[in-house]
Amino acid sequence: MTHADALTALDAADPLARFRDAFHLPEGLIYLDGNSLGPAPKAALRAVETAAREEWADGLIRSWNDADWFTLTDRLGDKVGAVIGAAPGQTVVCDTTSINIFKAVAAGLALVPERRVVVAEGGSFPTDLYILEGLRGMRPDLEIRLEGVDAPAIEDLLDARVAVLLVNQVDYRSGARRDVAALTAAAHAVGAVVVWDLCHSAGVMPVEVDAAGVDLAVGCGYKYLNGGPGAPAFVYAAARHQGSLRQPLSGWWGHAAPFAFDPAYRGDPGIRRMLCGTQPILSRRAMEAGLEIAAEADIHAVRAKSEALTRLFIERVEDRCAGFGLTLASPRDTAARGSQVAFRHPDGYPIMQALIADGVIGDFRAPDILRFGFAPLFLSFREVAEAADRLAAILKSDRWRAARFQARAAVT
Amino acid sequence: MTHADALTALDAADPLARFRDAFHLPEGLIYLDGNSLGPAPKAALRAVETAAREEWADGLIRSWNDADWFTLTDRLGDKVGAVIGAAPGQTVVCDTTSINIFKAVAAGLALVPERRVVVAEGGSFPTDLYILEGLRGMRPDLEIRLEGVDAPAIEDLLDARVAVLLVNQVDYRSGARRDVAALTAAAHAVGAVVVWDLCHSAGVMPVEVDAAGVDLAVGCGYKYLNGGPGAPAFVYAAARHQGSLRQPLSGWWGHAAPFAFDPAYRGDPGIRRMLCGTQPILSRRAMEAGLEIAAEADIHAVRAKSEALTRLFIERVEDRCAGFGLTLASPRDTAARGSQVAFRHPDGYPIMQALIADGVIGDFRAPDILRFGFAPLFLSFREVAEAADRLAAILKSDRWRAARFQARAAVT
Repeated sequence: MTHADALTALDAADPLARFRDAFHLPEGLIYLDGNSLGPAPKAALRAVETAAREEWADGLIRSWNDADWFTLTDRLGDKVGAVIGAAPGQTVVCDTTSINIFKAVAAGLALVPERRVVVAEGGSFPTDLYILEGLRGMRPDLEIRLEGVDAPAIEDLLDARVAVLLVNQVDYRSGARRDVAALTAAAHAVGAVVVWDLCHSAGVMPVEVDAAGVDLAVGCGYKYLNGGPGAPAFVYAAARHQGSLRQPLSGWWGHAAPFAFDPAYRGDPGIRRMLCGTQPILSRRAMEAGLEIAAEADIHAVRAKSEALTRLFIERVEDRCAGFGLTLASPRDTAARGSQVAFRHPDGYPIMQALIADGVIGDFRAPDILRFGFAPLFLSFREVAEAADRLAAILKSDRWRAARFQARAAVT
Repeated sequence: MTHADALTALDAADPLARFRDAFHLPEGLIYLDGNSLGPAPKAALRAVETAAREEWADGLIRSWNDADWFTLTDRLGDKVGAVIGAAPGQTVVCDTTSINIFKAVAAGLALVPERRVVVAEGGSFPTDLYILEGLRGMRPDLEIRLEGVDAPAIEDLLDARVAVLLVNQVDYRSGARRDVAALTAAAHAVGAVVVWDLCHSAGVMPVEVDAAGVDLAVGCGYKYLNGGPGAPAFVYAAARHQGSLRQPLSGWWGHAAPFAFDPAYRGDPGIRRMLCGTQPILSRRAMEAGLEIAAEADIHAVRAKSEALTRLFIERVEDRCAGFGLTLASPRDTAARGSQVAFRHPDGYPIMQALIADGVIGDFRAPDILRFGFAPLFLSFREVAEAADRLAAILKSDRWRAARFQARAAVT
């Protein structure tokens, strides 16, 4: 357990402390939900106003050129690339994670047309699985194998019939972390293409897609990248695949010459082929500030602080809340964790509601998970300790019990 | 030709004149490109700031409930519905036109699984055709028949093998307008499903999708609906089809219970099944003001003024610019036109550049089209006449000729 002096020392020595001032954070709130919606960079708020008032209202249609709206695609993409270890020209920001999964898995399947098996995680964030179902609706020959359903470990599902492995670097509930390089190599060893879902890891730990030889990747703009509510997602395709990329959402923004208005589709020779239609400019303009902050921070320092924060939180919760029925649902081994910590409790929902009312925001994931995200760019060690202390105070006070039955009805 | 007094009288009698003040319009500019990017409603600028500063920055994750971000889907959708003649519960705002075409055509194909022919327009805005190509990439059995390639008139392509007719109410270049009710009836007579692309008509003329018995429709949020740059698109599916809708982009937002995190997809029983992933909130919040204005205006009054504006512009251009090589590329019959007017000129590009420099914004579409959009909610008759006069002055002055060769190089 870490004492007040030690927390002060940790905060004083934190090389990332200077980034906190880049964010607008409501006074007094401890925000452990940056893994669900990152806070607003102050520069993002200014950028949105400029985009609305100067670019849209005054500039009108001219802003597509004058305010570089069209080139935002590459500019934002390359900034995401810097965060995930991708050289320029391999990442674009567009659409949603779900849609980019559809494109990436379809593109992966097209790279190994003689195979028809997709391997994924039974415990994945569900949209990954829903999209695979949608793909199979169009391609009834697809076979989907799931970790946790067809085998206990995903590695056991890889064989010479597998076309695509779709896998999350960090599990959305438990925070369990996979080794990108090792699993990519295992997929390649059987001739499969790998699509990494980086929703719960991009911006908070090294990914190094280029170094790991990743084929395709997708991820979310509004979590640790702090891109704003519902910010567009991203998609990465390794340069070596771009010449032969085929994806079915072949809209005009992916055309080699969108303004030629050619009736026949001729895909862009590079990463823009993963684009489809016109992108929401105001949301995109909000996104740039968050990406600049993420690209500026040393990702290894971010990871080191993330490890320290999650370790501190687990130790302090287990110490202060002992005997109140919380069970750690994240890996105890720091190296096996992402930047979030989950505890199970049969009354997780009302406990989380009480904690939120007390100024500590985490979230609840059915059926019984209290989930806390630790974003090193704006959190202090002192706040994280305080969050554990407030959770302990709530459990000891029984304040949450009154609302228990009502809450259970509300969440189902 | 209409004289100054007559223009003053027309503006004084205009029942829509009061809407102009709802928009931010740069002083002195005559904006004939509302068909490409509508101007900013003043209320939209305020809504964006509230969404960024209060909802995102202060409210953080709580705003999904407290600021009704999640229900924006239905709220915006029903407002679009009011504009296109759809009863509530049949329209959602989401993703892009291209992506919604993919969903709608796929859903249409699933409604008539025994057929495999799609009919479309060879001269369509190209993304419609590109998306059909993408669909055929996944479904090689699809046969695509094109008006202008396989037959001169789209009606001649309809037969008992046709599954889906994908067609635009208004042509993006010429402004030629189709009869929604008649063509829908013709498609139904052969047992086909119709998907209307309303990009160039929604908000500027009656569509009446319910009354016409339309099956599915898609359209754009950033043109005549004034939703902001790259605003999300919309998709309509008639209530009678919703129980059997199947679309392949089956992401978590289309699930009947997205927050149950069920590993198996169970589609929403209603129009939300057309959703896929998380939507860009800042761009959505900007959109609401424009939709409210559009829903408030009487669409028949909008159409009447639109007809008068396009007629005035054609008459005045043909009178003032006679002998300078402009050829009308839109239907001369007002009833056969949407709300835009196209003229051909071999030097269309440098002429349009000179006109823009002179404060009249239209746009150029390759190879030789000067395109002008007439949005009745903010344009006056006087402005439209003035635009024709400035075009005449430019043609007479030869100011554009100097830049001709340079411009030709730049546009290709």
